Formats: sequence, structure tokens, C-alpha cells
Amino acid sequence: MKPFADRLAEAVRRTAAPVVVGLDPRLEGLPPALAPEERSPQTVASAFERFCREVIDAVACLVPAVKPQAAFFEQLGPAGMQALANLIAYARQKDLLVILDGKRNDIGSTAAAYADGWLGPGGCSPWGADALTVNAYLGEDAVQPFIETAKVRGAGLFVLVKTSNPGSRQFQDLVADGMPLYQHVGRWVEQIACQSLGQCGYSLVGAVVGATYPAQLAELRSLMPHVWFLVPGYGAQGGTARDVASAFDSQGLGAVVVSARGILFAYQNSPYRERFGPDHWQQAVEAATKDMIAQLRAETPASQLHPPSSS
Amino acid sequence: MKPFADRLAEAVRRTAAPVVVGLDPRLEGLPPALAPEERSPQTVASAFERFCREVIDAVACLVPAVKPQAAFFEQLGPAGMQALANLIAYARQKDLLVILDGKRNDIGSTAAAYADGWLGPGGCSPWGADALTVNAYLGEDAVQPFIETAKVRGAGLFVLVKTSNPGSRQFQDLVADGMPLYQHVGRWVEQIACQSLGQCGYSLVGAVVGATYPAQLAELRSLMPHVWFLVPGYGAQGGTARDVASAFDSQGLGAVVVSARGILFAYQNSPYRERFGPDHWQQAVEAATKDMIAQLRAETPASQLHPPSSS
Repeated sequence: MKPFADRLAEAVRRTAAPVVVGLDPRLEGLPPALAPEERSPQTVASAFERFCREVIDAVACLVPAVKPQAAFFEQLGPAGMQALANLIAYARQKDLLVILDGKRNDIGSTAAAYADGWLGPGGCSPWGADALTVNAYLGEDAVQPFIETAKVRGAGLFVLVKTSNPGSRQFQDLVADGMPLYQHVGRWVEQIACQSLGQCGYSLVGAVVGATYPAQLAELRSLMPHVWFLVPGYGAQGGTARDVASAFDSQGLGAVVVSARGILFAYQNSPYRERFGPDHWQQAVEAATKDMIAQLRAETPASQLHPPSSS
Repeated sequence: MKPFADRLAEAVRRTAAPVVVGLDPRLEGLPPALAPEERSPQTVASAFERFCREVIDAVACLVPAVKPQAAFFEQLGPAGMQALANLIAYARQKDLLVILDGKRNDIGSTAAAYADGWLGPGGCSPWGADALTVNAYLGEDAVQPFIETAKVRGAGLFVLVKTSNPGSRQFQDLVADGMPLYQHVGRWVEQIACQSLGQCGYSLVGAVVGATYPAQLAELRSLMPHVWFLVPGYGAQGGTARDVASAFDSQGLGAVVVSARGILFAYQNSPYRERFGPDHWQQAVEAATKDMIAQLRAETPASQLHPPSSS
């Protein structure tokens, strides 16, 4: 299996779209035709699976990757976990990279067990994700087992550095030795990232950096030149295409921007509600994805983000 | 449902044993009679389930709680998750409290989905755990949804403050505004804990503090007088009964100490290997649990830890 960093670079170049669609199914967001009549974990899990499959069908040709959010499947117990496994397999069949958003973290052999379970593009693990988000509060020896498994399997990681929520200031912005905690984490991520670079110049070790803190995003971009950024907080949380422009390198690589609600439930909100409505919710998903791609291209002059047909 | 803090206090008083048995099944640790012939996720998951059920049978009358480690079940995909759900239900039938070690963390409504799924003593969630470990790197607004669900359901939380691994120094010991990060987290946990105290004087919001840092454990105990401590790092990782003595209040409450490997796989190690051996592995589990309880009682003079029959 080719290194994750290179597979992501190729997928971004192929689609000319640095966009990751977040698969965050919610009961209240399901189009009426897919809403289950009764609300057992089993029926909701099948409704979530069907909804996400249809989202995948709508976006598979447009974007490089999807990001299932583990919480919304775990919420439904074992039935939800089976739906998650089915969806990861389905997305990979459709040539999408799958970044599992689980923010996993633990020490030593426990971290190794998480890594062994989740990181397995090509069927070498029961879940089979291409990449996983991880939390580094526990320190280097807790992240290292994830890196070793990722290296062997051609998988990737995104370490939480500066998250998109307002409360990320509380601990992540505490200043120690003259720099905020998120910079300590970020500098260390850059350092370990350099030990496993792909041909594209980026590492299998990526970082989560929120779109809602544009100044920190720009600062971290220059501190971490070998690290793919997974950028949440776009759209519903307030981040704009201009806010994330600094995340990209001069080729338009180095970052992928996530949108979940803004795409999945586009049919519920203007301007898509008026144009499509609940019966054509899949077309709303497609339109919202294309609009986001266009917005990012408009703010990012790099050639890689402008496919020949649109230049 | 009575508050988690009070249910834990009652269970510690009843058993006179502040011990949590970690359910961390590993293939290489299974007694030969339980080892699966082929190694598919399904067969390993059933072997793990059977092993953990028999561990639960051996310790149910001795300790207040068990702590399944999510990673070892997630490693096996959906089959492992089903085994985990079955085990949580089985442990609760046996009147054990179940602390799910998942170190979950995310923002806003995603955190709420994790909480809704995991925290459900008495069957009000698909997993039905009494308590969950959580990681606070993301900040207050990411922990609050866990607290709200825990409050409504009589469940508990343990926030990672100072973890037991050597690498916990890297970020947790960084000094900002004159105190290390783990103290910032600890002081804030004490503050939110005080907003939801049980009759026992402790809160539904607990903390994870490692046995391997005895000085910090003592320091945090005095900074966090209303917070139950879940103390990993005992035994295999190096923590001793003397190291954890400062975690208890004068009644012998306020902390529960975890052992996993040292109990589960006791039959593989001295002195239990010689006394029991693989065919009597369950008796080794029981003996190792009783020995740990005796060691903690010996170092902890508080009356609650000495049942009438032994005084």
C-alpha cells in the first residue's frame, strides 16, 4: 500500500478539491423519506447507513475523502458499529479515502490495539480506515504505537493540535516556555512527521487545526511544513474559504477542509432548501459540495486546485 | 438512579476494597482452554467475552467495579463491540459498576452523542456503562455535554488529569502561569465537580491520576477534595500500595485503584503460576485480587477498608 500522504496528494490533485465530507448522521437531519418509523438502535442505524451511502454516491466523484464521525455510530451501540464498518467498506469501494474521526488515545499496548483495529486500508483490519484522528494529551509514547502501525499499513494519522471549538482556548492556549500548548504539540508533530515523509513531501502524521482560528492556522502552517492539515470548523462553525486559504501550500496541497452539516443537511437550509427541498436532498448535497469546492478554489490561486476543464 | 458518586461510595464500603479490575483481554494472555483455534475477529471476540465473563464471576463478590478497555474490543471490529456490550450487561447483572475506559473526547453535539451512547446505567443507553473516561484537551465546552448527560442518568466521568505513562510528562508537566498543565486541568475539574456533589461529598466528575507519580497524586488529592480518583498504573506499571495511599481520604474513600494484567493473567506469573497454573487460572484471578485488596488495606489505615470480619 502506497503511503497515505501520497494517496491523499493524488486524490486532491485528481479531484482538484481539498474537501472532506464529514459523515455525521443525525436523526433530525434525515430527509423524511429515510426517517425510520420506530426509533430502535437497529432501525436508526440502518437509516444512518442508507443516508450515508447515498451521500457517498453523491460526492464520490467530487472529493478525495470522507470522514465518518465515530460518535454518531457509537451512540447506537453495536448496531451502529456494524453500520460504520459497512460504510467504511462502501466508501473505499467508491475510491474515497476514509478518515475515521475517533480522537482515540491511550498508552502503550492499548494505543497499539486501537491502531491495529482502525488503521487498515485494503482490508488488513476489521474496520479498514485509511486514517484516524488521535489526541496527544497523553504524550509521545502514547502516539508512537499509532505511528508504527500507520507506517506498516500505509495509513495516516491526524493529531489534534488546535481544535475549532471556542473552549479550545482553555488549555490549548496556555503559554509555557513562551509558547502556547498547541504550538508545543504542533512543533513536536512536525518533528515526528519528518521521520516518515511520502514522495509528496508530506508525512503520514497530520494535524487537526480549526478553520475558526485563522491566525493560528497560518502560524501553524509555517511551523509545520511537512504536515497535512485536516481543517474542521468550516461553514456551520463559522470558518470561511478566506480563513483557510493560508493552510495550503503554493501547489494547493497540504490541507483538506471538512464540511459535515453544511453538506449533509443542505436541503434544510438556504439557498438549497428553495432550489431542492427534501425530495431532492441528494442533489442539494451535490450542489453544496460543488459550491464549497468553488469557494475554496476562488480563494486559493494554486494551480492544483484548478482542473484543466475549469481553467 | 442514585448519583454515581454515591453508588461508588456504597460499593467501596460494601466490599471494603477500593479496587477496579481492568478488563483488557489479550490473545496471548488467554488460558489455553479458552484460546480460539482459528483467529477470526468473531472467534477471538467470543473467546474474549468468555474469558471476561469468567473473570467477572471470579471477582464479582470482591470488588466494586470493572473497567473494560474499549480498545481491545474495538480492535476486533463489530464482533468485538457486540462482545463489549454483552460484557457490560453481564457485569451489571452481577452488581458490578462498569467504568468504560474509552478516553472519549469531541466538541459540542458530537460529545453529546458519545455521552448518550455510553452513559446509561439501568439500560437507558445501548451500551449502558455507569461511567466513562474522557480526555479534556479540547476544553470545557467539550466536557460539559458529558457532564449534562451523566447528571441526568446517574452516571459518572473520569477526566484524564495526570496519566500513568512516562510520556505524560511531555505536555501534562509543561508549566504555564506557574503551574503544570495537569494542575490547570485538575483545578478546573475540582471546580466543575463541586457543582454536582453526591451525599458522600464526592462528585459525578472524577479524575484519572496515575499511581506511577506518587508526589503528584498526593498534591492533586489535596487540590481536588471532591473528586473520585481512578488510579491506573498499579502493579505491572510500577505503582505500589504505598504509592497510592495518599489518594484516599480519612474514611478510605475518594479513590479506586485499577489492576488489569496483574489480575487477569496472574496464572502466567509468580507467585500464582506455581500455585495455580493455566488450568486453575480463575483461582489465580481471585487470589491476585484478594492479595491486591490486602496490600491496599495494609497501607490504608482508614476504617472503611477494614470489614468487621477482618478487624
